[in-house]
Amino acid sequence: MNFTSDNAAGMHDDVLAALAQANPGHASSYGADDLSRRVEERFAEIFERDVGVFMVATGTAANAVSLAAMTEPFGGVICHKEAHIVVDECGAPEFYTGGARLVGLPGDGCKLSPDTVSDALASYSSANQHSIQPRVLSLTQATEAGRVYTVDEVSALAEVAHERGLSVQMDGARFGNAVAWLDCAPADITWRAGVDVLSFGATKNGCLAAEAIIIFDRVKADEVRFRRKRGGHLWSKARFLAAQFDAYLANDNWLKWAGEANARASELSTGLSLLNSVEIAWPTEANEVFAIMPKELKTRFEDAGGAFYAWPGEPPRPLASDEVLTRLVCAFSTTPKDVEDFLSKAV
Amino acid sequence: MNFTSDNAAGMHDDVLAALAQANPGHASSYGADDLSRRVEERFAEIFERDVGVFMVATGTAANAVSLAAMTEPFGGVICHKEAHIVVDECGAPEFYTGGARLVGLPGDGCKLSPDTVSDALASYSSANQHSIQPRVLSLTQATEAGRVYTVDEVSALAEVAHERGLSVQMDGARFGNAVAWLDCAPADITWRAGVDVLSFGATKNGCLAAEAIIIFDRVKADEVRFRRKRGGHLWSKARFLAAQFDAYLANDNWLKWAGEANARASELSTGLSLLNSVEIAWPTEANEVFAIMPKELKTRFEDAGGAFYAWPGEPPRPLASDEVLTRLVCAFSTTPKDVEDFLSKAV
Amino acid sequence: MNFTSDNAAGMHDDVLAALAQANPGHASSYGADDLSRRVEERFAEIFERDVGVFMVATGTAANAVSLAAMTEPFGGVICHKEAHIVVDECGAPEFYTGGARLVGLPGDGCKLSPDTVSDALASYSSANQHSIQPRVLSLTQATEAGRVYTVDEVSALAEVAHERGLSVQMDGARFGNAVAWLDCAPADITWRAGVDVLSFGATKNGCLAAEAIIIFDRVKADEVRFRRKRGGHLWSKARFLAAQFDAYLANDNWLKWAGEANARASELSTGLSLLNSVEIAWPTEANEVFAIMPKELKTRFEDAGGAFYAWPGEPPRPLASDEVLTRLVCAFSTTPKDVEDFLSKAV
Amino acid sequence: MNFTSDNAAGMHDDVLAALAQANPGHASSYGADDLSRRVEERFAEIFERDVGVFMVATGTAANAVSLAAMTEPFGGVICHKEAHIVVDECGAPEFYTGGARLVGLPGDGCKLSPDTVSDALASYSSANQHSIQPRVLSLTQATEAGRVYTVDEVSALAEVAHERGLSVQMDGARFGNAVAWLDCAPADITWRAGVDVLSFGATKNGCLAAEAIIIFDRVKADEVRFRRKRGGHLWSKARFLAAQFDAYLANDNWLKWAGEANARASELSTGLSLLNSVEIAWPTEANEVFAIMPKELKTRFEDAGGAFYAWPGEPPRPLASDEVLTRLVCAFSTTPKDVEDFLSKAV
Repeated sequence: MNFTSDNAAGMHDDVLAALAQANPGHASSYGADDLSRRVEERFAEIFERDVGVFMVATGTAANAVSLAAMTEPFGGVICHKEAHIVVDECGAPEFYTGGARLVGLPGDGCKLSPDTVSDALASYSSANQHSIQPRVLSLTQATEAGRVYTVDEVSALAEVAHERGLSVQMDGARFGNAVAWLDCAPADITWRAGVDVLSFGATKNGCLAAEAIIIFDRVKADEVRFRRKRGGHLWSKARFLAAQFDAYLANDNWLKWAGEANARASELSTGLSLLNSVEIAWPTEANEVFAIMPKELKTRFEDAGGAFYAWPGEPPRPLASDEVLTRLVCAFSTTPKDVEDFLSKAV
Repeated sequence: MNFTSDNAAGMHDDVLAALAQANPGHASSYGADDLSRRVEERFAEIFERDVGVFMVATGTAANAVSLAAMTEPFGGVICHKEAHIVVDECGAPEFYTGGARLVGLPGDGCKLSPDTVSDALASYSSANQHSIQPRVLSLTQATEAGRVYTVDEVSALAEVAHERGLSVQMDGARFGNAVAWLDCAPADITWRAGVDVLSFGATKNGCLAAEAIIIFDRVKADEVRFRRKRGGHLWSKARFLAAQFDAYLANDNWLKWAGEANARASELSTGLSLLNSVEIAWPTEANEVFAIMPKELKTRFEDAGGAFYAWPGEPPRPLASDEVLTRLVCAFSTTPKDVEDFLSKAV
Repeated sequence: MNFTSDNAAGMHDDVLAALAQANPGHASSYGADDLSRRVEERFAEIFERDVGVFMVATGTAANAVSLAAMTEPFGGVICHKEAHIVVDECGAPEFYTGGARLVGLPGDGCKLSPDTVSDALASYSSANQHSIQPRVLSLTQATEAGRVYTVDEVSALAEVAHERGLSVQMDGARFGNAVAWLDCAPADITWRAGVDVLSFGATKNGCLAAEAIIIFDRVKADEVRFRRKRGGHLWSKARFLAAQFDAYLANDNWLKWAGEANARASELSTGLSLLNSVEIAWPTEANEVFAIMPKELKTRFEDAGGAFYAWPGEPPRPLASDEVLTRLVCAFSTTPKDVEDFLSKAV
Repeated sequence: MNFTSDNAAGMHDDVLAALAQANPGHASSYGADDLSRRVEERFAEIFERDVGVFMVATGTAANAVSLAAMTEPFGGVICHKEAHIVVDECGAPEFYTGGARLVGLPGDGCKLSPDTVSDALASYSSANQHSIQPRVLSLTQATEAGRVYTVDEVSALAEVAHERGLSVQMDGARFGNAVAWLDCAPADITWRAGVDVLSFGATKNGCLAAEAIIIFDRVKADEVRFRRKRGGHLWSKARFLAAQFDAYLANDNWLKWAGEANARASELSTGLSLLNSVEIAWPTEANEVFAIMPKELKTRFEDAGGAFYAWPGEPPRPLASDEVLTRLVCAFSTTPKDVEDFLSKAV
């Protein structure tokens, strides 16, 4: 009954098997191996076009390396004020970009709106040499609050960005969960909607440590290539990054596994919402449930062996002193029984 | 018959088994798991003292994160001019340190001597605000040319460094191979000899992707902790870094595996040296053989299926136009038969 | 009738005379000249203690070099959200610090309160490696809105900062104006109140280009010395920085000139406040007047030759659509007649 | 008899007069003043084309800001190993570029040759992601050893650079001295010969603190504009930078003053060369004389009141133990009598 994070899960058996299968014999190092080629081709199929693919081990690396190739040091990255790049990466974006600024904006459910972005951009001007210059719009898909941007929403946001000369980065640490929810073509929610670079997450959804920077437009792949190495993120035994993706992308596993996690979250959300004392904070769209509950109930769950965290982000409404905003995350490996068992502890 | 690099090998079966064993169930993320604790304790035993342990996936990360915690941006890192940090990390040390300078010095077999270091340091002064300030001495153990610093050599170098207020970093990408050759206590060749921070390599010697920053002295662990995260090198599913080390450090596996690689290199070196046309460039002490051979011979080996590289470093003597300096690397997985087969192609 | 900025004024005749006087003959370069020594001694007298003195040409340089010596790159600088370091330095603090984050907080009149700072700090923890770490509290004296922190206010803020291990930087671009208003010992409003480093501004108050980093505590002077040079802010003909300060500090000129500017601002503020349609936004304490006026009145002033800017900062109350928040700045050289002439245009 | 540096001189009376003349009244700050416009136009005339002009106070700033706009952080700057950017700027280029590497090459008289540059470039490849990527060729004109590159030499070097995709930066801290020696059009030795960006020095040749970044090609002016501000190098009272240049560029003063300094150096060089015990190290082409002399003679000069430094750079030949390589610098203000008086002390 561990709902602390999808990071608390291990890897899918298929991923482990892929590592074992890739292990014997020699392979060219640093990404010159056949498996890496195959993964790159698979990504091109998935996104229905040529893409640049740069595999790394962590989401922070994927985001920070990408952003560094998208803005000069005097630039700004427009994002939600509770975005992972702001709150949870210890300043990695600032480090990799050489000190660009994260401009955090508000938005319910950790979603940005075109108007909010547009208003923020209006206060900057390239004529003002005293000010940092916005260069990137960063969207998190699914958001930190478990919400999913629709194709129309991403398109509208990207249009605002592109009109002002910004490029668009998508932090897709839970991209699989978002696409599984949207049930759309990956191309539709990314480059066709105006996304230029995607952090395609896999770790949280069943891999050991695997994220891919997917470059569509407006960014030079060479920049990313050198910056990845310079950041220490080029694996020597790169076949073991590729092997994870090979299993992850095969047979739409990434969508199936994400779909499982989403289904569990939906069940959990429904179950919690049936409790009188619990209020679901934001619609449960991906694999995370945000619930406002009595502190007493949280303690009861925990005493019964349930594990989940209070969420430090801004709640959708002011909380009473005996209430707490909580986050419960389901992983690819969470079972219906895990959810049932947990819910059974509420009473 | 692949001698291109120890990076071309896979992982040891024990490492794969450890990953499988660590996989089931939930574990706290970001290094708060039990396995990480156990590895930390194991390192303390190996080094016979308290140590700071920070696991990462690549050697470049281990070196660069360490150096960043050891020098201000206006500092200098004294090292061999052909050191990995100079030649093979795309400027990662400059990136992580905020632009400190690598001061590359000469030395046969890629070894530095106390006199060379001392002379270089003499040209700097803290009274000269126009000049960068040496802060770190970086030693590579084993060196890029396959040589191993003795305890006395490290001690003498560290003494020169400490006298001038520099701290000492050791790039131990092949630390196991060096210790296996030296047959000494790990403590003797590190902190007892004056090493302050060690990049303890494991990837090349049988792991998937695992290096550990080991902090002995003169560096604040907190700096390393935050800089690791900020560099994007903190794994969420950190148990899988720890699991590799757990297998690697168990039963002195790291020394056994390195010893195997060293033994193969020794056999290969001996075999090559018996060929009239081949000259061993530097004593074969770890798992790398450097050989000057006729280009024709290199081609013959390659035509027969042997794989190894010409080495771009400075040769020990000028080469004739038909000669080439080559590097042949043995891994934990290289078999005596691999060596025999290869040597048999010389004729 | 130019009230656009104190930067629009030239230099005081005494400063020009000092440049002329320092010009003949040779002088040691890079700050080894006698005049630089004299200025350093003069600062020690003014602050009644030993101080580190590092002269530079711009306020942005003084702030950014200071901050770089006060925080690691993974640190945070707590400041007002409209502070000069946030809004007007094109990210210089992020650049010099290696990507530390400016944490901008609200506060009326661009003043921070101990509670606001305390609350902000409570959301950070050194146990959280995913988060940047607050290291510096930066106060602007006088503030961007023309207000002046009292000794008690600075003391209370510094206490909050020091308790949490932060050091305190003061951006004193208009420090003279603040001290002239407070009529206190410079020591009382700085180190005795807990300020560790001060940007002592002189450019705006009658110099050509002269600011001094004054180090009291908690920062190593050597760091500042090397970072100043590395930033390109060490003048070769440093006597010409020193000469400006020599004139500026002589006979309490800096306080006299600031006092003149403050007096003009006070007269201007009083005059404007007598107009029915004008509302003084914040108490006029230093040399800047912030006034909410009808847009029509602003145009009338401008048509009559008055120059001043609309102020983009947050107004003290919502503005009507025909209102505008304006800033009018007086310099050492502004005359009572300038103020009278300007006010006469209101009708 | 001070020959320590041209930095030990003051400013030319014309520059002081220009500051006085520019002082009265108000002027737009941050470079929006009329005098700045006039200087920009004057530069366009001097270089016979449109140029980007960015004035700063120090040569280190001019170089470092330029280089930052010319290379990504993973780039390399090819330069002479004794160049000012390597030896005397405390790592400012590394700081501003975000950690690009200075690749110092040898060359007699601190001059680079096309072959040396070409050979160095041959060891780099864009296919090698492990290596920094050369992006800029930096030439010092006149060199640190007082030599001057001819138009043909610059052209040949720039051709090598451009062929490989590098842009060319010229450190012209003593550009006036070089042009005065060459007696050529400024355009001929810069953009017509392939120089993309020039640090146009004025401080050493009679100004207070004034250097200009002149952009010809291959660099976006906007990058320089924001990086100048971000570096803290945009003066608020920018008219005082412009006023210096206004006087400096008027009536070819810059060439006249440099010509005077060169003439004095020539006289000094000739006089020293007549002494049996003195050997001129490199041809005296600009305003610096490099002489190998008996240590005893150096002492004799100094005892008689002559001031000059031993030069730490590599001598043109091994020195005997009683010899010293010295540098004697003439300024715009050095008089024939200064030279005569000094020479008279040799006997």
